[in-house]
Amino acid sequence: MLTRTLSHETWGDHAALIARSEGDSAGSVGKVNPQVCDVATPENPLELQYGERLEQVAVAYETYGELNSQGDNAILICHALTGSAHAAGIYESESVPGWWDPLIGPGKPIDTNKYFVICSNVLGGCYGTTGPISINPKTGFPYRLEFPRYTVRDMVEVQKRLADQLKVSSFASVIGGSMGAMQVLEWPLMYPERVRSIVPIAIGARHSAWAIGLNEVARRAITSDPKWNNGNYAPDEQPETGLGLARAVAMLSYRSFDSLEAKFGRQRVGATRDLLGVSFEIESYLSYQGVKLVKRFDANTYIYITKAMDDHDITEGRGRLPSVLKRIKQKALVMGISSDVLYPETEQKQLMDYLPNASYVRINSPHGHDAFLIEFPQLAVRLRRFLESL
Amino acid sequence: MLTRTLSHETWGDHAALIARSEGDSAGSVGKVNPQVCDVATPENPLELQYGERLEQVAVAYETYGELNSQGDNAILICHALTGSAHAAGIYESESVPGWWDPLIGPGKPIDTNKYFVICSNVLGGCYGTTGPISINPKTGFPYRLEFPRYTVRDMVEVQKRLADQLKVSSFASVIGGSMGAMQVLEWPLMYPERVRSIVPIAIGARHSAWAIGLNEVARRAITSDPKWNNGNYAPDEQPETGLGLARAVAMLSYRSFDSLEAKFGRQRVGATRDLLGVSFEIESYLSYQGVKLVKRFDANTYIYITKAMDDHDITEGRGRLPSVLKRIKQKALVMGISSDVLYPETEQKQLMDYLPNASYVRINSPHGHDAFLIEFPQLAVRLRRFLESL
Repeated sequence: MLTRTLSHETWGDHAALIARSEGDSAGSVGKVNPQVCDVATPENPLELQYGERLEQVAVAYETYGELNSQGDNAILICHALTGSAHAAGIYESESVPGWWDPLIGPGKPIDTNKYFVICSNVLGGCYGTTGPISINPKTGFPYRLEFPRYTVRDMVEVQKRLADQLKVSSFASVIGGSMGAMQVLEWPLMYPERVRSIVPIAIGARHSAWAIGLNEVARRAITSDPKWNNGNYAPDEQPETGLGLARAVAMLSYRSFDSLEAKFGRQRVGATRDLLGVSFEIESYLSYQGVKLVKRFDANTYIYITKAMDDHDITEGRGRLPSVLKRIKQKALVMGISSDVLYPETEQKQLMDYLPNASYVRINSPHGHDAFLIEFPQLAVRLRRFLESL
Repeated sequence: MLTRTLSHETWGDHAALIARSEGDSAGSVGKVNPQVCDVATPENPLELQYGERLEQVAVAYETYGELNSQGDNAILICHALTGSAHAAGIYESESVPGWWDPLIGPGKPIDTNKYFVICSNVLGGCYGTTGPISINPKTGFPYRLEFPRYTVRDMVEVQKRLADQLKVSSFASVIGGSMGAMQVLEWPLMYPERVRSIVPIAIGARHSAWAIGLNEVARRAITSDPKWNNGNYAPDEQPETGLGLARAVAMLSYRSFDSLEAKFGRQRVGATRDLLGVSFEIESYLSYQGVKLVKRFDANTYIYITKAMDDHDITEGRGRLPSVLKRIKQKALVMGISSDVLYPETEQKQLMDYLPNASYVRINSPHGHDAFLIEFPQLAVRLRRFLESL
């Protein structure tokens, strides 16, 4: 076997590399500052889908580009499970660009010379928007498990309130992958007059048994960790074993047989024969991914968001799938990933069966579901073409 | 959505149903009794691949049919990770037939009127063969984590010693799926003169990064459970949460997107909105599978066996893959499963690229890896044809 120098950061670096190469012909949005907007108050509470109410909701968001006077040149970018509002540009304190930076900027496919781009942290997230780690105004303590359950539709409702406050009259497009694409599908059903096109990437109309099963395993990994303590852990004492294990399971589902084989194969960490030791690079990688997530994400939030994902079903309360999808008249670009084992192309093809105004693009990639965060050249070409056609 | 009556036992019952339908034209091996054979003693110790030594090894096994006077009408059946020697027939105390009962019996594809069929519990197993739950003769206590690490080659060595004691001169065929097929591939490389044909089902030449990753997650689930207690749990106080979680992850990999979708879809258990409650049938199913395994399997053994699987690599110490496979001159029937995500068909095709005397069969099934325990009609036709061609 060939000796390879492995780096756990390789995939992450890929984004930065592409960003730099695109940077030759297209600019960066540069330094950005996260902002916060109150979208629910005691006078204007947020009524949640399952009947509970939040009287105080702040949304963390970023914007790139300028809104026109009609308020109709906006694009909404929706993030995935562990994502944040930081889609593009760089923060003062960090050198790592946002998670879709190669696609967003002046001259880039989502062109900030033309569009006013918004990305906000979802309701119930842990990157600045009100969620389980926020202080419950009624108790003065963090909500933790007292936070109400919320759904993808509640996330969209919060985005709509943010759009109102930012004076966005309608979105030229709502774009996102994975859980972001769940929000993308809900937008034209909840606010058809406020969105003119959609780009759902690597998602289906409703969460599958397979995806629910994987989420459930992840949740059980967290709740089985004694340090989880029924959700009452200190912020710096997360159930790291459980959350790390949850991430390891998820990472496998985000990749693919072929990509892991190409990257790690049977490369060994060392010559250890220790029964409980790490023998292979793939084991080390999964462990490392867990450690990384524990540093940047909250265990309770992981439980809440995966529950919201499992409840994703655009037909809920709306009728049968064909009729629901036929209500989405907007121009749609549906993208699927050839090697996606979590949201396989059969799901996107089901969307295509009934969406009346959609075109389909396959992202050819060995990288599995995460290709929507990796295959920037393909995404760039397709997004640019689609947005230029609007 | 159609209302379906779900039963967790549906898949298991499938085997029994097929057994009954085949039973019209073919007989059962009937009542069987597990037997035990000593294959290592202080005078004849077992030297393990990694250098350790066992001075006392007993093997649990079953046989069906009669050995001929030349000792060459034997077939060895090799079991998978959580399997046992109970491949066919029924025990006095139980009504559930062995795990491959539809395929083994008088007039069945593995015809006990013609063949002497052996199935033994692997070295280090927990179904009667010496393993981590056995008493260490040097201490008088169970080995637990003091049991030496063993490999698939060690498993084969123990099978070979059993064959010697049973006066088997050579096997007409060695047959197995999944981990059983790892043993199948090792047999002609370790004892080429003792095996005349092989049937490896749903396996590759070496364990992939993907499969190692899944096993590692399962092991971490077990070792993260405080009740595991560094392996020192009482037999009736297993780390049930951890072992159950390990099984849930494994079950997902044994099935497929399509089979889980067809069986469970988004069927809900009830109307609960409880954050931590079980919402969907798939969650209930995975939990149930965990509970079932905890009752019948040992957590430490799970760790040991998955380590042995991860070390599966027929090239280890033997040279490059093409040359190693070309050494296997025996007639081979390689089977792959169309929906197998754990050991995908690419692995079996790699075997086919170099095995000099092999034919390939695809089992068309939506059921994923576990199809080798489910798709009995297809397996029956192919095995019968192959064995009749010998």
